[in-house]
Amino acid sequence: MPEQVTVTTVDPAPRRRGRPGYDLEAVLRVAVEVFNERGYDGASMEDLSKRLGIAKSGIYHHVSGKEELLRLALDRALDGLWEAADLARALDAPAIERLERLVRDAVGVLAARLPYVTLLLRVRGNTDVERAALARRRAFDALVASLVEEAERDGDIRPDIDPKLAARLLFGTVNSIVEWYRPASSTSPSALADAVCAIAFDGLRVRR
Amino acid sequence: MPEQVTVTTVDPAPRRRGRPGYDLEAVLRVAVEVFNERGYDGASMEDLSKRLGIAKSGIYHHVSGKEELLRLALDRALDGLWEAADLARALDAPAIERLERLVRDAVGVLAARLPYVTLLLRVRGNTDVERAALARRRAFDALVASLVEEAERDGDIRPDIDPKLAARLLFGTVNSIVEWYRPASSTSPSALADAVCAIAFDGLRVRR
Repeated sequence: MPEQVTVTTVDPAPRRRGRPGYDLEAVLRVAVEVFNERGYDGASMEDLSKRLGIAKSGIYHHVSGKEELLRLALDRALDGLWEAADLARALDAPAIERLERLVRDAVGVLAARLPYVTLLLRVRGNTDVERAALARRRAFDALVASLVEEAERDGDIRPDIDPKLAARLLFGTVNSIVEWYRPASSTSPSALADAVCAIAFDGLRVRR
Repeated sequence: MPEQVTVTTVDPAPRRRGRPGYDLEAVLRVAVEVFNERGYDGASMEDLSKRLGIAKSGIYHHVSGKEELLRLALDRALDGLWEAADLARALDAPAIERLERLVRDAVGVLAARLPYVTLLLRVRGNTDVERAALARRRAFDALVASLVEEAERDGDIRPDIDPKLAARLLFGTVNSIVEWYRPASSTSPSALADAVCAIAFDGLRVRR
């Protein structure tokens, strides 16, 4: 059985700025919705303005444009993942426990910031903002791979799988959650994190 | 250690029709490339014609249009997955072994038909062809879930994870491969299948 660890969902209080009802948080939430539906390239400020039911000037009151919305949205996902990474790194425990904590908290971040992480996972690097996000994502993946390597050196992770491949499959499982998980799901984020850790670390097969 | 099973990659001989150099297979291969780059909705017959360096009439010589290319491409992915499913179902073995065989062969299909499966996994159901593909994909997922359930009833799979959730995470891992695997990778399809099965069924953690 996996150790029970509380999922840390570090969601900052929504930043409020501008007129009531259309604060930056609301604009950002709708922007991410539209980006995920039409793709960032296919979504225009016109689309956002229509969806929000306000003039474009009402959006420019909060942000300089579409690219700033993208940057804020991707940072929302990346900041969450990096807060989880920092918590895991600060843990005074063997690498395998830091890794398990990171997987667990990353699932929490995915569930709590689902549309933002969905957007992040679709980024292909067409703009500076996207390339910066990809660089932060690659650094996160490198941290995961280094934790897997360290745990393998400790003898806690099976030595017959390349650590980079193991790290990829591990976060492949975590990231696949955005394809089907919905906040209204009957599976709570912490039950989801339990299931991911149980399968990834201990396997589906009953140990006899 | 996972049992060594040969990965079955059931790739049909390319169908040849039309003039040399631009057979249906070549047209389909380029169409899938363009669909994956621009999205099906964003790709035009004009784009395909430019990429192939032939007139649109050269494409219409092979297919009735863009939608037929999509159907052929999605069937290429789905036929592969269903051949793997039929092989697994026909196996005279406990459910957990049929499930493991299916995971292994599905990884083989993904690696061998990577662009086709990538296209399939991005389908959202905007056209009849896409909806038909989604229905076949859902039936495949239901088969996976039923194998997990059966293996859980047999006592071979841990009872603390909902079978539907386990099936989702299992194929989430498999499907995540399309995000990074490339045919030129140093990891062979069968090493990849071994790693997926080792992690999913037996876990990363060393058993003590």
